[in-house]
Order: sequence, then C-alpha cells, then structure tokens
Amino acid sequence: MPLDPTKHADWEIAEAAEKTMKTVYQLGDELGLEKEELLPYGHYVAKVDYKKVLDRLKDKPDGKYIDVTAITPTPLGEGKSTSLVGLVQGLGKRGKNVIGAIRQPSGGPTMNVKGSAAGGGLAQCIPLTEFSLGLTGDINAVMNSHNLAMVACTSRIQHEFNYSDAFLEKQGLKRLNIDPRNVEMKWIMDFCAQALRNIIIGLGGKMDGFMMHSGFAIAVSSEIMAILSVANDLKDMRERMAKIVVAYDKKGNPVTTGDLDVDGAMTAWMVEALNPNLMQTLEGQPVFVHAGPFANIAIGQNSVVADRVALKLGDYICTESGFAADIGFEKFWNLKCRMSGLTPHCAVLVATIRALKCHGGAPIFPDPDCP
Amino acid sequence: MPLDPTKHADWEIAEAAEKTMKTVYQLGDELGLEKEELLPYGHYVAKVDYKKVLDRLKDKPDGKYIDVTAITPTPLGEGKSTSLVGLVQGLGKRGKNVIGAIRQPSGGPTMNVKGSAAGGGLAQCIPLTEFSLGLTGDINAVMNSHNLAMVACTSRIQHEFNYSDAFLEKQGLKRLNIDPRNVEMKWIMDFCAQALRNIIIGLGGKMDGFMMHSGFAIAVSSEIMAILSVANDLKDMRERMAKIVVAYDKKGNPVTTGDLDVDGAMTAWMVEALNPNLMQTLEGQPVFVHAGPFANIAIGQNSVVADRVALKLGDYICTESGFAADIGFEKFWNLKCRMSGLTPHCAVLVATIRALKCHGGAPIFPDPDCP
Amino acid sequence: MPLDPTKHADWEIAEAAEKTMKTVYQLGDELGLEKEELLPYGHYVAKVDYKKVLDRLKDKPDGKYIDVTAITPTPLGEGKSTSLVGLVQGLGKRGKNVIGAIRQPSGGPTMNVKGSAAGGGLAQCIPLTEFSLGLTGDINAVMNSHNLAMVACTSRIQHEFNYSDAFLEKQGLKRLNIDPRNVEMKWIMDFCAQALRNIIIGLGGKMDGFMMHSGFAIAVSSEIMAILSVANDLKDMRERMAKIVVAYDKKGNPVTTGDLDVDGAMTAWMVEALNPNLMQTLEGQPVFVHAGPFANIAIGQNSVVADRVALKLGDYICTESGFAADIGFEKFWNLKCRMSGLTPHCAVLVATIRALKCHGGAPIFPDPDCP
Amino acid sequence: MPLDPTKHADWEIAEAAEKTMKTVYQLGDELGLEKEELLPYGHYVAKVDYKKVLDRLKDKPDGKYIDVTAITPTPLGEGKSTSLVGLVQGLGKRGKNVIGAIRQPSGGPTMNVKGSAAGGGLAQCIPLTEFSLGLTGDINAVMNSHNLAMVACTSRIQHEFNYSDAFLEKQGLKRLNIDPRNVEMKWIMDFCAQALRNIIIGLGGKMDGFMMHSGFAIAVSSEIMAILSVANDLKDMRERMAKIVVAYDKKGNPVTTGDLDVDGAMTAWMVEALNPNLMQTLEGQPVFVHAGPFANIAIGQNSVVADRVALKLGDYICTESGFAADIGFEKFWNLKCRMSGLTPHCAVLVATIRALKCHGGAPIFPDPDCP
Repeated sequence: MPLDPTKHADWEIAEAAEKTMKTVYQLGDELGLEKEELLPYGHYVAKVDYKKVLDRLKDKPDGKYIDVTAITPTPLGEGKSTSLVGLVQGLGKRGKNVIGAIRQPSGGPTMNVKGSAAGGGLAQCIPLTEFSLGLTGDINAVMNSHNLAMVACTSRIQHEFNYSDAFLEKQGLKRLNIDPRNVEMKWIMDFCAQALRNIIIGLGGKMDGFMMHSGFAIAVSSEIMAILSVANDLKDMRERMAKIVVAYDKKGNPVTTGDLDVDGAMTAWMVEALNPNLMQTLEGQPVFVHAGPFANIAIGQNSVVADRVALKLGDYICTESGFAADIGFEKFWNLKCRMSGLTPHCAVLVATIRALKCHGGAPIFPDPDCP
Repeated sequence: MPLDPTKHADWEIAEAAEKTMKTVYQLGDELGLEKEELLPYGHYVAKVDYKKVLDRLKDKPDGKYIDVTAITPTPLGEGKSTSLVGLVQGLGKRGKNVIGAIRQPSGGPTMNVKGSAAGGGLAQCIPLTEFSLGLTGDINAVMNSHNLAMVACTSRIQHEFNYSDAFLEKQGLKRLNIDPRNVEMKWIMDFCAQALRNIIIGLGGKMDGFMMHSGFAIAVSSEIMAILSVANDLKDMRERMAKIVVAYDKKGNPVTTGDLDVDGAMTAWMVEALNPNLMQTLEGQPVFVHAGPFANIAIGQNSVVADRVALKLGDYICTESGFAADIGFEKFWNLKCRMSGLTPHCAVLVATIRALKCHGGAPIFPDPDCP
Repeated sequence: MPLDPTKHADWEIAEAAEKTMKTVYQLGDELGLEKEELLPYGHYVAKVDYKKVLDRLKDKPDGKYIDVTAITPTPLGEGKSTSLVGLVQGLGKRGKNVIGAIRQPSGGPTMNVKGSAAGGGLAQCIPLTEFSLGLTGDINAVMNSHNLAMVACTSRIQHEFNYSDAFLEKQGLKRLNIDPRNVEMKWIMDFCAQALRNIIIGLGGKMDGFMMHSGFAIAVSSEIMAILSVANDLKDMRERMAKIVVAYDKKGNPVTTGDLDVDGAMTAWMVEALNPNLMQTLEGQPVFVHAGPFANIAIGQNSVVADRVALKLGDYICTESGFAADIGFEKFWNLKCRMSGLTPHCAVLVATIRALKCHGGAPIFPDPDCP
Repeated sequence: MPLDPTKHADWEIAEAAEKTMKTVYQLGDELGLEKEELLPYGHYVAKVDYKKVLDRLKDKPDGKYIDVTAITPTPLGEGKSTSLVGLVQGLGKRGKNVIGAIRQPSGGPTMNVKGSAAGGGLAQCIPLTEFSLGLTGDINAVMNSHNLAMVACTSRIQHEFNYSDAFLEKQGLKRLNIDPRNVEMKWIMDFCAQALRNIIIGLGGKMDGFMMHSGFAIAVSSEIMAILSVANDLKDMRERMAKIVVAYDKKGNPVTTGDLDVDGAMTAWMVEALNPNLMQTLEGQPVFVHAGPFANIAIGQNSVVADRVALKLGDYICTESGFAADIGFEKFWNLKCRMSGLTPHCAVLVATIRALKCHGGAPIFPDPDCP
C-alpha cells in the first residue's frame, strides 16, 4: 500500500515502495526471460541481452506500440513521464501484459527545477536512486567512447606535426592534415558545466599539442547517444560509429572517426550499453530505461533496441517521445520510426492546464526574487 | 586446460579460459557469501557488499596479509601483477584458501606499451574485457564525483559575481570570494588527454563564468580515488569527501568541497563504488579488484575495504603495491597501513633480469626508428 | 621639370622632385606664418601651431571650402587623393592662393595593393617617405594615448580585486566594479595584425590581472583619432577625451576614461598631435596632412583644426572625404560639418571608368593565380 | 636665476627655466653644426645628422670619454642621471666644452616611483615634457619596427598553412615551417601593460591565423633598441636587423627577420631614429638623449652613435651606464665598448648614503600602509 501522495514527497513514496519491490530475477521470470538473457546489476536492475531475446523470439508477433508525447510544455515539464508510467500501471491493473520504455535521465540539470524524469506521485519508476545516478553506466560509456575520438583527433594532429611522412608511413599512417581551427567535435561530460562550454585547449607546450578552440557539451547530446537510440543492432552501431565527422582537413574535407581508426575502440566501450536496462513501476510492471533525453539538442528518444525487445516480450508497449509533439514526436516519427521501420498503433498527447495557459500567453516563470 | 603461452597471446589464453570460467554466483558460494552480500554485474563479475560481510564476520580472525611489490621497474613494467596472480594460483593449487586483491587499471595509457595489468600468460585475471574496460564503473563514479566539485566551484564564482550579498543570504549562501586565479583542483577524465592538460575555461561570455586556467588530469590521480583506497567505510569516506581543497579565496584561505556544500552529492556518486569487485584467476581463485593505479601520481594502492573483506573471507590474502618498492611499497606501508591499522605478515619483492640490467646502467628503451 | 609619368614610377617622380622642393621655412613664409607658428620636423615637414594662427587671424574671413569625394570605388581606389592634389596644383598654376588638406595614411595595409594615399603620377604630396612612414608621429601619439586607457582599465580591475574598500578609499579611489567580461575597448596598433584581432589577455597569474577577451584594432580606427578629427581645440579635445566608454561595471553602467581618471594623461600624449602637419605638392603648393583614413571603420576625415587653419591662410581650400560619397561624404556632411559649423562652397565628385564599370556589374578583382 | 630647489618641485624648476632656454638653433651654432646637420623638432629639440657630422669631422680627434655609473641602487634610484647632469653643468661653468649623453626614459613606469630620468633639482635636462613624453619618437619607431617583425611572422605561418608549395614558390617564397609553439619573439608596447605580458593570440578563426602563446614586453627591452644602442652606422644597423631570431622551425632551426624578408622594412622605420636627439641642461650645456634604459632587461646604454658625435663636437663627454656598476657598467665595458672600439678615459661612481645603508642590510621599502 503506497504512501499518500498528498502528504509525502515523490522520493518518500519511492523509498517506501522499494522495500517491497520485486527483484529483477522475479521481473525476468514474469517476462519469460531465459537465465542468460538477464544480466543483473545488483538485485533490482538488470540489462537484458537484446540479441538473445530477439533471436529467440524472432517469429513472435510484436505487441501494440503506443507513443506518449505532449503539447509544448512549460519550463517545469508537463508530466509526460508521469502519464506514461500511470498508463503502464493502469493497463497493468486491468490485467494487460504491458511494458514501459523510457529514456534515462541526464545528470546535467543539477538545479533540479524539473521533475526526476522517473514520473511522480503514485506513478514512478523504481529504484529511484539508481535511476537518477547513472543506472548501469550507459551515459558513462557514451562519455568514454565520445572523448576517445577527441583524444585520437588531438593526438593525431600532434603526431603528424612531429613526424615526417616517411615515419608516419612506417607506422601505417596516412597524413590526415587536420586543420586545428576546424575541429567540429567537442568533448562531453554528464554535467551542465557552463565553464567548460567554450575553452581553449593545448596550452601545455610541445608535448600537449596545438592550441585550439574546443568545449564540453552535455553527454546526452553526443552523436553516440543518438546512435545508441537508433541502432538496430551491434553491427549497425559499429557502422555508424565510423562515420562521425570529427574535424575537417586543410582542404575542407571531413575527417571521420573511421579515418582516425578509432571506431573499433569506441564501439568496444559501447557493447554493454547497447543492452537495455530493466526496472519496474511502483506497482511492479516492467519498464525499459535506455538512451537519453533532450530532443532539443539531441534525438532525445528511447532506444529502438529497447522498443524491439519490449514489443517481443509484451502485448502493450508504451514508449515516450520527449520535448513535446513539435520536436520530440517529430523526431520519433520522422527519424526513429523511419530508421527502425516500426510504426506506432496509438499516440497519447499529454496536455496540462498550466501549459495551455502559457500557450495562451500567461507568464511562464514569475521569479520576483531574482535581482 | 589452458592454451600454450609460448604459442598464444595473453588475450587468446584469457578468452579460451573464459569459456569455462566459474559464474560469480559459484565464486560467491565458495567464499561463503550470503545471497544479499553478492551484487552481480552480469554473470561473471560482482560487487560484494563490504558492510554486510564485515558486520557478519566481525568476530572472525583475519587471514595472513601478503604484500607483493617490486624493484624499480623498466618502462615496460616487471610482472608484479603477473607474480601476484601466479602466487594466488600456486597457493590455490596447494589447497590453500587464498584471495588476490589488486587495483583496477586506468583507461588512460591508450598506447598500451605496458601489459594489461591483469597479469599475463597463464597467470591472469578474468574476464579480461570487463577488467580492461571499466569493470563495474568505479572510475566513472570517481570522475562524476570529482567533476561535480568543479562544476560547483565554477558555478559558485559565477553566482557570487552576479548576485548581491542580500540575495545570496536569502538563498542561504555565504559569500566565499573564491579567487578565479587560484583554483587548485582540476577536472578529470579516464584518458591521457594531453590536449586537455592545460586549458583555459570560461570563454563563453557572461553565462559561462570567468576565464581561468584549468586542466584535466587522469581520473585515477583524483583525490577521490585516494579516498576510495584508504576509507575504512562509508562514514569515513563521507568525512574525507568534505575536506578536499578546491580553491583559495581572495585572502588565500582554502575553500573546500564542504564549503561548497557539494560533499554529500559527491559521496552519493561513490556509494556503490565503495563495494569491492569480485573476479577470478585463470584457475578460478577469487580476486578482488578495487581502486586505482599509479603510485607516482596517486596513492596507487588496492583499497583498504577490499583487503579487509578478503582478510575475513580467506586464509591468505595477496595484495599489491605498485610502482615499485621505493614509492609504492612506501605508500602502502606509511600511508595505507597507518590509516587501516592492518600490518602485513609477509612481503614479496619481484625482480626481473631486465630491470636489474637497467639498474646497472643498460639502455632502457632503444627505439632506433624514432626520428 | 618632373620625370615623365609614362616612364617612371610614382616614387621615382617623387624622389626626383624632392631634390628641388621648397624647405618648410620657405613654405611658412609664403603662407605668411610667424616664426613661432611654424614647428619644423626636419627641413621639409613642419607642424603649425593652430592656436597661434587662429588667434592672430581670428578676424580674417575664411577662404572657399571645397570638398573632394568620389563614387563608390573599386578595391584599388579611384584617384580621389590624386584628383585633389591635381586640383590644388591646377589652381596654384592659375595663380590662386590654394591649400590642400588631406588625411595621413595608415601603416596598416602592408600589402600595398592600394596607392600610397599621397596621390600619384604628377599629382603627389612630398616628401613621400616621411608621408608614408608616420610623418611627425601623430598616429603613434594616438596609439600611446589609447593604450594608456587600457593599461589604466586592466590595472584598475587588478587593483580593486587585491585591495579592500578601506585601502582604496585611502588612495582616493572609489570602487568601479568593472566587469572583466564586459570591457568594450580594445588595444590598438598601426598594423593589420590579424593574429592580434582576437586574443585572451591576463594569463600571467596573480600579478598580471584577470583573464579576459581582448584584441588589437588598427590604430586609425581609435575613438581618439575620431576626436583628433573633430575637436575644435585642445579644450574640446580634453572634454571628449574624458567621455570614452572603456568598459561596463557589474550592473551594466558605462565606465569612462574620466571614471578611470586617465583622461588628463591621455590628452598629454595628444597635445602636439593636435597641430596639423605642413607638406607640399610636387609643384610646391602647401598641403596640410592631419588625422586618419578609413571612413568605413572610423570617421576617416581630415581634421577640423587643419581645415580651419587652412581656411584662414588660403583663398581656396581643398579638403577630402574618403571612402566614397555614400559613407565618407556622408560623414563629412553630417558629422564633421555639424561639429565644426563649417559649410563647403563646392564639392568635387571623382568618377573613374573602372569604378563605373564595376557599378555596372563587371568583375572587380580578377586574380587567376589565387588557389 | 633658477628657482630654489628646497621650495619647488623638479617640474616647477624645469618649467621656469624653459622660459629662457636656448633655442635648438643657438645650441647648434654653439656646437659648430652646419645648418643641414641640425634637424629641428620644434624650436627646442633637434635630431643631429650623425653621418654628416662624422664625415665632416672624421679627422678631428675625439674628446675625453667619461662614464658615469653607480653602486647597486635602491628601488628609488640613486641620482646617477642627476650626478651626470650636475657634472656637465659644473664642467660647463668652469668653461669646458662639455656634452652630456644620456638615455631616453621609457613611458612604462607609470606609477612614477622613480625620478624622471632627466635628473632633478638644479641639475636637469630640458624641455622636460618633451623629454618625458616620447621626445622625437624613437621609441615609437622601435615599436613599429619590432611589431612589424611579428606581423610578418604570424602572417607567414598563416600564409604557409593556407597555400601549396607550388603557390608559395610562384610568390618567391620558400616554406619556412615555423612552429607556432616556438615563436620566441614577443610584441612590444611602451607601457608596463601587465595584462598583456602573457596572452594567447590568433583566436579569431581562419583569417586570423593560429592560436599561440605570446605576450607584450616593454618597448625599450626590444632587441631593436639594443641594436640602436650599439650600431656604428646605418649599414651596421641594417645588417644586425636581419639577424634577429623570431622563431624556430619544426626542426628547431632558428627563423630570422632576414628569413622573413622583413629586415629592410624594419630598418626603414628606424632610419630617422638613428640620429641622436639634442637637448640642453638647465644651464644650457648640450645633452644628447638617445636609446633606452633598463640594463636589467636590456642593454640599457646610451647609443654609440650619440657618443661618437659628441666625442667629435666636444672636449669632455659624459655618458651614462645605468642600473649600477654590476650590470650597467659591465654592459658598457664588455658589450658597448667592445662593439664601438671606444675606451673611456675616466669613470664616475655615484654612491648615496641610502644605498650604502641598504647594502648594509637596512630595510629597502617600508610601506606600512600596504594591506
């Protein structure tokens, strides 16, 4: 029996529910997963081996594909995730075999004005701490994979400056002639590190390469996170991983991760991350949490892989397209669905009174205390 | 039956052995762990809940504490980890209840001149891929925890510049007056990103704070990794986490993570990381892998927590102090042991012919191809 | 007898003519200048003490004021200065008491695609070397005066950071609270130093102040050069010199040279520069050369002071408004004439066949060799 | 009759004396200069055409060469210039044909703790304002000449990056391969601009070249000022001007101003500056003022050219070697005299009580008000 949401904070409700939640083994059994298909990370979260599941059930027809989106929200968000979790719990209560599929939150918005992205009140995704603090490490994997490309790029510029054509050839390297003033890729970190948004790197002298403009973006905006969202499988991910444009050469031609020969190592960091993460609602329905948010600066969609696995395991699959219908649902429909070939059977549009008021011109964010 | 090391590479031997290795559940059973004490990360690696184990076995006497170190090595390393794993396997073959305790490798040295840090030949620690690629994410946790302090510091400078004393007070903040030219802490990343060693940050204008010198160090050199090594428990870690000096104020007084009120959040990122990771040797003996390397730029010791858990679970515990006796064993003896109160019963000193030659003046690294 | 312009370069014609040119003492005599009104700089260039001349001749009516401008030119320029010098020489040959008034060239365009700004062929201003290489140092004076304001600004930021309110008060200083991210003024140099256009300053540590974005502009674009152009006298210059906005404080209020208490010292550097420079045409008519070019990035007008002195000393005064009628004549008419109260009696519009072709759509700059 | 130095400031004494001082024409007559050898800059300062004088008097024997130096001084300076001017005035009063030869002050030390470098009290060099504010522009000429080398260097790096070998060859350019991380020369400015001491340049993007560490030094520390000090004539100056090391190429070989083909233009800026400047003492003896100060960071000697001219025109020549005997006289003796071939007949060593006290260990700079 959950706590009363009119008297308790979201995290209190979550914490109380976690005392009696299902283990991830039990969740796996209910989903009909084989033992080796479930990769536990502690007792309450697991990764699911997408490939084994999809191979085993390749002939089973998919469940119903339901997308939850919203009207353009206020800065506080409009309960899209809460509605999705509520929908999953409601269908579950009516005896349906239902699975949720949502995105993993970013560690970035430290000021925490928005909700936890895990839903709220009596419609949440648990365990909450794991959900909020990096889960099984997928964002960290994206970070290491992404930054490895930049290490390769800056080292290569340095290397080519120091050595002759003959020496490079002996090492099997073709001179790439990257223009240090035209490195397009930036580094990433899972924080809103404003102080790192615009930086100059390479000040350390001869051993540390060339000075150049650079910067850190928030991790979930990485092209690698987009690849995690839309890749159909490891092979597809591997191919996309080689096509990332890192910089341009002196003549303006693109230099890719493939040209830098770093795509293999980058993919190695992402192998485990491609398996979707299994959690549960407050009422015990399974939820896959995979890929990242922010459709304004990223694709911002739950992964194709998670959706595919869920469509094989459940009858009703509620997936989410964030940042409102005008950008999030657009990207769901015109990018993600085109790439996956999946088509939704139904869409749910969340609209709050507060957002409708804003649409009508009401002030969004009165903050009389701000100087 | 392992592959022949005269005909196969280390990774081939490891890969072959992984096909028949014990599951981590089997390892846990052999160690006498209760079910809730073992937190699996997939089927072949687990974290062990140190607190539950130490509470349950607090009255059991400790096993023998054996430290493995080496003479000053060559740039290639001298097989310290290999000797340690070999010693564990040898004691195991003689029927002893033995446990290894080693450090997790850094993702930094991408050029991979040194060995894998997992040992080599027939004396290795498996599964090798997990071992090499971040294991259960402890280094990532250190990275997020560390960088959070820098986000807090740079945001605070920005915040204090923008707002009046009265407004800060209303937010419960005392003006810290951090000198942007005297921020001692740097950021970290788990790569040798030379281009990031010396950087200027904060170029983005008013919203992005103040320009200042900064830089990225390699993740394992973080003070938080040192804290992970020497903390006796979560409470000890929490206390140490508040005492990290981030910067100095205008008058030259230190400003700590505690002053920035970020120590709690930093600790939250590290809670799971404090549990040591359980792996196995090629011959199936348990090995704890915990905390980071590089005694030259860090403490570079396996964790106190891992040693304590191993000392309760085994009769013979082989731990490792890297970077040779003159710095690694020194730090083991005069820092780690003083802080833990533990004393070794025996020390093993690895010495190779090659290192002895170098000590005698032979050239270290003939590289005739280098221009 | 000058050299044949179809057979000789401009500089050869100038050099030949310089062998028999008038001394500046002879020029002064012909203009009726008193001995102390003429300040020689070598034997062929002088400054004229504008104040003494204007005081002595304050009741003499002005001569005719003729402005020479041009249609929008090609990148090569369209002979505006050449036409002006030719006009002066022609009126002189007809026995008129005529004086030219032109701007001093910038040392910046080192590639020298454009002409020398001294005219060309048989219509030039001499001595040419002095004309081209800084003349009597007015641009250097602007440079020192301008950069002094930036030294004062950056020192003040540093000073206020280091000291308490009480200490500043003891020094008679009110805290200005300059925002280092909002320093609007840049430094200047009399070169197209592209590498200095965007720079970061203050990297040297505690003694060298705060890091900030900055840059060097070309000297003649300085607001001080504009003041030199439009000032009616030293008092007017002094007043304008205190009103230059250097930066903004934390609240966004402007901080001026007057607030920095540096306007007096800046004016001191400019006292001599306010006296116009006297040179001659190839045929011996007097020409005043004063203030700087580039109406696109500056006011780009010959000085009011030079025009006033010339109007008292001659019957016909040919002044120049550069960068074509659409910007240079506009600034002459709507800025310079409004500020001086002078009105021209006549305007000459230079139009070349080449410029008319470009106006009609012909290609401007065929450069087939450029890669 | 001068003002009473116990009741009046130095500048008041100077200003009063300037009302009756000799014109520079009168000074020239007394020195026996031909009309074309004297190049007036206004009525009270002139440059002297060193070449014409030395050619005319090449057979006249030199006067006596007297060097004035000092013991290691306090931060306030020890009256070396004052003693020199006093010595000149004293010898003059005794009817000797005496000439002083001192260095021009830098505009840098704006805080003005030290004296004016023009002497003090009743032993000063006038007119004082011209003396203090750039005189005839020699330092500005050094500045323009020096910075031109840096413009050439940074443009060349940019140019070589943008163009192919074939295109460079068509322009008559050999690829210099300057290493942007190894540009040794800095820019100069005649101020203590601390904020410019360490800077990063070239941030402006493709058109503005490469980012690199750079900085501004004080103008008088330029190698070109050293060349002005020691050059025997224009030809010597021209040769030295081509040998300045600006940067190093990728292989570590020096790249000079000659390699950059900028030595001719640099020399053009310095032609006039090579003529020494003529001024007078409070009592009307002639003083040459030429080249720059600061033997700690520069050669800091009056010019060889000025000394040579004075030695031809006078019987007793008092020259000055600043920054005390241990560095200034050392540089006079072992650098300047070796290069000129001149040898002094006498040296005067200034020693003050205050400096002797400091040598004995007394506190140098009590400043109780500094926080």
